[in-house]
Amino acid sequence: MGKAVLRHLSAKHDVVPVDRRLDGIPGIEGDLTDPAVLERLFIDGCDAVVHLATIPGGAAEADPSHAKRVNVDATMDLIDYAARAGHSPRFIFASSIAVFGDPLPPLVDDDTPPSPRLIYGAHKAMMEQWIETQTRRGAISGLSLRLPGIVARPRGPSGMKSAFMSDVFHAFANRETLSLPVSPTATMWLMSVAAVVRNLVVALEGDATGSLTLPAIRTTASDLVQSLGNATGGTSYMVTYEPDPMIEAGFGSQPPLAAPRAQSLGFRADDGLDALVQSALAQLSSGNAS
Amino acid sequence: MGKAVLRHLSAKHDVVPVDRRLDGIPGIEGDLTDPAVLERLFIDGCDAVVHLATIPGGAAEADPSHAKRVNVDATMDLIDYAARAGHSPRFIFASSIAVFGDPLPPLVDDDTPPSPRLIYGAHKAMMEQWIETQTRRGAISGLSLRLPGIVARPRGPSGMKSAFMSDVFHAFANRETLSLPVSPTATMWLMSVAAVVRNLVVALEGDATGSLTLPAIRTTASDLVQSLGNATGGTSYMVTYEPDPMIEAGFGSQPPLAAPRAQSLGFRADDGLDALVQSALAQLSSGNAS
Repeated sequence: MGKAVLRHLSAKHDVVPVDRRLDGIPGIEGDLTDPAVLERLFIDGCDAVVHLATIPGGAAEADPSHAKRVNVDATMDLIDYAARAGHSPRFIFASSIAVFGDPLPPLVDDDTPPSPRLIYGAHKAMMEQWIETQTRRGAISGLSLRLPGIVARPRGPSGMKSAFMSDVFHAFANRETLSLPVSPTATMWLMSVAAVVRNLVVALEGDATGSLTLPAIRTTASDLVQSLGNATGGTSYMVTYEPDPMIEAGFGSQPPLAAPRAQSLGFRADDGLDALVQSALAQLSSGNAS
Repeated sequence: MGKAVLRHLSAKHDVVPVDRRLDGIPGIEGDLTDPAVLERLFIDGCDAVVHLATIPGGAAEADPSHAKRVNVDATMDLIDYAARAGHSPRFIFASSIAVFGDPLPPLVDDDTPPSPRLIYGAHKAMMEQWIETQTRRGAISGLSLRLPGIVARPRGPSGMKSAFMSDVFHAFANRETLSLPVSPTATMWLMSVAAVVRNLVVALEGDATGSLTLPAIRTTASDLVQSLGNATGGTSYMVTYEPDPMIEAGFGSQPPLAAPRAQSLGFRADDGLDALVQSALAQLSSGNAS
């Protein structure tokens, strides 16, 4: 997703990407847990930060100490460096619906308090709290966006327990069979990479602060498979369902979602399930999966 | 306060105190940021932890990095060690009304969300979130108690911006004059050390989890001074008022407080202002200030 954001922002802004591997893209190759990287990053000041780096759900469960160093310590350090380098710079933080944990209430809306179950979700909730405090103090102008399931993420070991949501796109794009770890009636909140990028730009260019749940497309697994079949000419029997109770509870039981605050600020979900599917497939076929 | 808790709990339980200075009390003298201290602490397992150690408001503002190491990192480490040493041990955390920041709403109750302004308050709110998550996961049985202003803390540099609340007790006890950094109409939430100890015992012996605002005595500065005068035979002109706008906003503008959840679980404020004053003065004269 970082590459898609970079491509979009670079057209209008002077952007310095930071990642552990930049694969030839000009920027700073290194780890955010390294103070030298943060020093270099802000050497020319700071107008704004878009902070996407994270150790996601499954990887955080496997190595909580490493996850804490990246998700908590490095995020707090990044805020300190940005605040010192700029004048209350804009700070956009990729939070997650993982702050809500499970089981979820019958409706999630702007009044639903965080109650994470995953280490990853707890780290995100703690950083939301810290970003709100640093914004209240004037150190930064911070906005945390709680992102739903993003499709389609690149293939391969992502450390995400929700990887199946993207795998199903890759399967249809490549005419492969797939076993989904949820039932056909599992419900999920999804957003295409293109829609996430649009929302990050709205966040960056606006001045709203706080922690915001984004609107999302809510679909069942079977409706998603149907839409993918229609879009690709694939067939739904390419997919079998072998529900894993933990995955079904954590990622396949998402109730209706109301996000009026984000809507009123100009944040948008994809324009329906079929539009989301087409957007995600177009991104895959253009080779811009990451 | 640690000593008062220790005295009370030692009568019934096998308690190992940990502090940087124990002044001859048997226990582990050392810093919670030192893994060797945590190793030693839990060598015989763990039934319960009462975690009072903190870098408070003023000291945290003066050295945010040190405060983060103690208030966040060491607290998370302590939880990890306790969880590994026991079977979902009871974990009582001294949180603070500083999670609410300022300005406060017209009423603070069980539905008021945290919105800290002090670094100290943000650290406490983040740890509440972490303790709630670790409790949800079954690693600990955690309860965070949001303590009001505790009187009387020991004299001397405490690093607390709210030190004046205790200083006025010492002034009356010792017949000294004092300038208060708030106005006579400033309103404060207070609890005597003896009441805090009683509530910590209720917390430790119960099984309630989550984050709980405790009931407190709400008084104006002038009513407190009047009550202190009555109790000590001192006179109110021992006290002058030189309000500091920051202190008045942060510690002298506390609205009515409703804590029905804590009340229903058996947590109690002092039995009125005069009882609180007498309790705090008795504790001072017995030399058990800390």
